[in-house]
Amino acid sequence: MAVDMKVDKKKRSRIPFIGEGCWQGVEKKVYKSDSSDFKNIHRKVLLGKETPSTPIELRYFEIDPGGYSSLEKHEHTHTVIICRGEGKAIVGEEVLDAKSGDVFFVAPHESHQFIQQGEEPLGFYCIVNKDRDRPRLLSEEEKERLKNHVNFID
Amino acid sequence: MAVDMKVDKKKRSRIPFIGEGCWQGVEKKVYKSDSSDFKNIHRKVLLGKETPSTPIELRYFEIDPGGYSSLEKHEHTHTVIICRGEGKAIVGEEVLDAKSGDVFFVAPHESHQFIQQGEEPLGFYCIVNKDRDRPRLLSEEEKERLKNHVNFID
Repeated sequence: MAVDMKVDKKKRSRIPFIGEGCWQGVEKKVYKSDSSDFKNIHRKVLLGKETPSTPIELRYFEIDPGGYSSLEKHEHTHTVIICRGEGKAIVGEEVLDAKSGDVFFVAPHESHQFIQQGEEPLGFYCIVNKDRDRPRLLSEEEKERLKNHVNFID
Repeated sequence: MAVDMKVDKKKRSRIPFIGEGCWQGVEKKVYKSDSSDFKNIHRKVLLGKETPSTPIELRYFEIDPGGYSSLEKHEHTHTVIICRGEGKAIVGEEVLDAKSGDVFFVAPHESHQFIQQGEEPLGFYCIVNKDRDRPRLLSEEEKERLKNHVNFID
């Protein structure tokens, strides 16, 4: 494992939680800038590029009422821990209930999407490798095939 | 990224949380079998060896009242998310408050230990690379040095 200890000196050992999906010194970011098939969602990077020695990135996503993440796929895996609210998760061709405490695993090349439900925002941690491929949206053909199983996508 | 899709067919897309630090189909394991410098702690593996395509392992640790994890160090990094209770975390030469929602990062070769406080168990997720080195306990000399800063270790 190649690590750069010198550059890591600025790393934060603790990122204090301050409630309601917020951490001290962690700013809200746009969800994505290169597509628009999502709604009412933002992200926060809790651990990532600024910490050279981490092999992973830890992101927090929050979806406000009526919102959803992109329906997408990629080679890299997602490990997701729901920590706030409830909703649905599409993983592969399954639609699964998602509520606080549930853990999801998205394997390579599985289609996936997270959809908020209820009154509270749906908040979740998502762990990815720092070194990873770019996501791609589903083709119209792939969406059509998924529609036979799933009725959440437009 | 080398993945074995065939073997992954048994993977669980969702691991449902059933409350009080428990997930459906996930059994409690002993914390460690090769050392004894810990107390009142157990672990659960939420994602790991049984899922060939994951590059990480997601473990859940829970420390009951009066307990603590090993004081140890290793090259691989820890990303820790506290999700239950409160206590202290020793990371490097700092003693930090730990409460639900806080995120901790343990860099390569940093000494670390988690200590439960209060009435509720201290529960936390810990993310590590699947491919990693073995932890080692601190030497007496290292413990002595740490005692100048930290008064939690015996």
